[in-house]
Amino acid sequence: MTIIVLLTDFGLQDIYVGVMKGIIKTINPYAELIDLTHEIPRQNILAGRFALMNTIDYFPPNTIYLVIVDPGVGSDRKAICMRGEKGYFIAPNNGILSGVINKNKVQKIVSLTNKKYWLNPHPSSTFHGRDIFAPVAGYLSKGIDINLLGEEINQGELVTLNCEEIKVNDRLIKGKIQYIDIYGNLITNIPANILENKSWYVQEGENKIQPYYTYSSVKDGELLALIGSHGWLEIAVNGDSAKIKLNKNYLDSITVIID
Amino acid sequence: MTIIVLLTDFGLQDIYVGVMKGIIKTINPYAELIDLTHEIPRQNILAGRFALMNTIDYFPPNTIYLVIVDPGVGSDRKAICMRGEKGYFIAPNNGILSGVINKNKVQKIVSLTNKKYWLNPHPSSTFHGRDIFAPVAGYLSKGIDINLLGEEINQGELVTLNCEEIKVNDRLIKGKIQYIDIYGNLITNIPANILENKSWYVQEGENKIQPYYTYSSVKDGELLALIGSHGWLEIAVNGDSAKIKLNKNYLDSITVIID
Amino acid sequence: MTIIVLLTDFGLQDIYVGVMKGIIKTINPYAELIDLTHEIPRQNILAGRFALMNTIDYFPPNTIYLVIVDPGVGSDRKAICMRGEKGYFIAPNNGILSGVINKNKVQKIVSLTNKKYWLNPHPSSTFHGRDIFAPVAGYLSKGIDINLLGEEINQGELVTLNCEEIKVNDRLIKGKIQYIDIYGNLITNIPANILENKSWYVQEGENKIQPYYTYSSVKDGELLALIGSHGWLEIAVNGDSAKIKLNKNYLDSITVIID
Repeated sequence: MTIIVLLTDFGLQDIYVGVMKGIIKTINPYAELIDLTHEIPRQNILAGRFALMNTIDYFPPNTIYLVIVDPGVGSDRKAICMRGEKGYFIAPNNGILSGVINKNKVQKIVSLTNKKYWLNPHPSSTFHGRDIFAPVAGYLSKGIDINLLGEEINQGELVTLNCEEIKVNDRLIKGKIQYIDIYGNLITNIPANILENKSWYVQEGENKIQPYYTYSSVKDGELLALIGSHGWLEIAVNGDSAKIKLNKNYLDSITVIID
Repeated sequence: MTIIVLLTDFGLQDIYVGVMKGIIKTINPYAELIDLTHEIPRQNILAGRFALMNTIDYFPPNTIYLVIVDPGVGSDRKAICMRGEKGYFIAPNNGILSGVINKNKVQKIVSLTNKKYWLNPHPSSTFHGRDIFAPVAGYLSKGIDINLLGEEINQGELVTLNCEEIKVNDRLIKGKIQYIDIYGNLITNIPANILENKSWYVQEGENKIQPYYTYSSVKDGELLALIGSHGWLEIAVNGDSAKIKLNKNYLDSITVIID
Repeated sequence: MTIIVLLTDFGLQDIYVGVMKGIIKTINPYAELIDLTHEIPRQNILAGRFALMNTIDYFPPNTIYLVIVDPGVGSDRKAICMRGEKGYFIAPNNGILSGVINKNKVQKIVSLTNKKYWLNPHPSSTFHGRDIFAPVAGYLSKGIDINLLGEEINQGELVTLNCEEIKVNDRLIKGKIQYIDIYGNLITNIPANILENKSWYVQEGENKIQPYYTYSSVKDGELLALIGSHGWLEIAVNGDSAKIKLNKNYLDSITVIID
């Protein structure tokens, strides 16, 4: 009974997710399917990267992650399967796996070129989830060796995204927004452990945004900083959207002052 | 094979629900997870109470209900597990279980204080679903005795909500709105059996709202009263929102005239 | 382990879907439930027909499809179970099964009149999903013979919808819009194979809409025609809604010029 975790930007109205599940269950009736989310904002690879990265610590080892946010479908971007210590990751090579590499020793990466494990040898140009990724996940969950799926590629070929760098010195920390959740909270790439035992605040234009433990520690509509449940520094507004209030987006920089 | 039914206000975009599922499956690979809904309006305990109350008659006994609408997370509200004749209910003690008490003889309630069954001894202040509730559900589904989860509390300590009272006399019935569904239908706390074999209508300001069997019994845009599928008196507008048309909200009172 | 695929317009906020799952699992704990979609636009039988028709090739044979888009609930429309070579289809007889008939040799159709397999003998007038369809799916998944569910009806009694006709001659093809996806792409009923090896474009008012392989082949905001992933001619706008740009709706006609 292998778990296959599904993460896509397909949404829940159309049949894309259901079709992939049918293909997997046809190949392996014993696969267990768990939806992580299908509501990643369309084509937002950064959001998919963040969701995956913060999930893998909570599933059993050998879980198969089927990860499809794929604006480059139909182009020459590679479809890959990566084996790490926390499981298998099937995805387009577009950076969506870049968040899990540091948390999860990479053991092998292959390019999914063996058409024997595709739905058929002539995939569509728009739905590789059905034509390549889902059948590969099905076969992998049945115990097919990763080496059979295609030729090995080097870790150096993995696409990375420009969202992991932070600058740290005695007076300040400069990071970036790596995710914006459904409430408009701005999640930075600054991890909690850097801020431990320090006195600090976020400088955002004229605003000095002070740290608190919970959203409701400030009045409705007021800004606060906090360590979010996934362990990252986060900027929020009690009862409102920090994204809108501060007019921020993915990869915008955030400055923390150590005082 | 124990069923764990999940009811939250976490939504389906972020990874909160998926993370909880990973934790449960890591503890008990044989647990079967069924989503009731994750779209309870954010922090709306009344909506969560209604959803749970109208569901428990349809699942097998011994089902575990994992119920998280938790505006007080991080405060001193208790996390509890209640054993009733229809199953186990794991939830914050904030009134969300108040609807099932009358339908479901309570056998035991414990406060979830035994850190042995938490994810780790230092829970976050914002995500007890991951840190306390999900692991407890996992262990319970494996057969851990409820008495091991923490110390017993009395039923008198259960938080109740001010939404169950109705006044009945020969001429009228006064109740309250206990739920508003996605279409804006106003579901009252007046049960169908009180109205059986009576001639009645709803008096709402100047409007006399007459009873019908189906929404389409009146013209588009017109008000009607009916017994909804969960067995409660409901006020609706054919093809439109009664909530908006009548400007009503949760706990507003509703008057039925017996004639 | 029989798969039951659920397709409804119930949405994911209210408890309708969860209640049906509880009923099925109470009747047959070994049934495996897979959500196809519950976000069919409310009462849109055409959208439900399209979703089902394009899904059945991907699930194992003997899958049970529980298909509920049912604006006529409570009227005298029949509830039916159809046995075809690709599985069982439980649905209201309102045309929602009309898309699968051509793809799936019909072997038997019965009207679900045997109250022994209902939740109870007195169904509500608004929620036959709970009262009739879900319990019938549960019993069928346990191996109950279709002939026990009610009396046989002829295929001629199946309701059809006016959306399958296309006119083809040497100079043009006239079809209809049979589905509009969440992005506003207009999916016609013209199948890919008719257009193979031909030079063609879509004539829409003054616009000559040319064919491409991918959405991004044209500039943002520009119209294109393409063969969508389900194998139908589709009209789209890169990064925008063709439905809004062309002001089109279900069943509107679409003309292809062969040149």
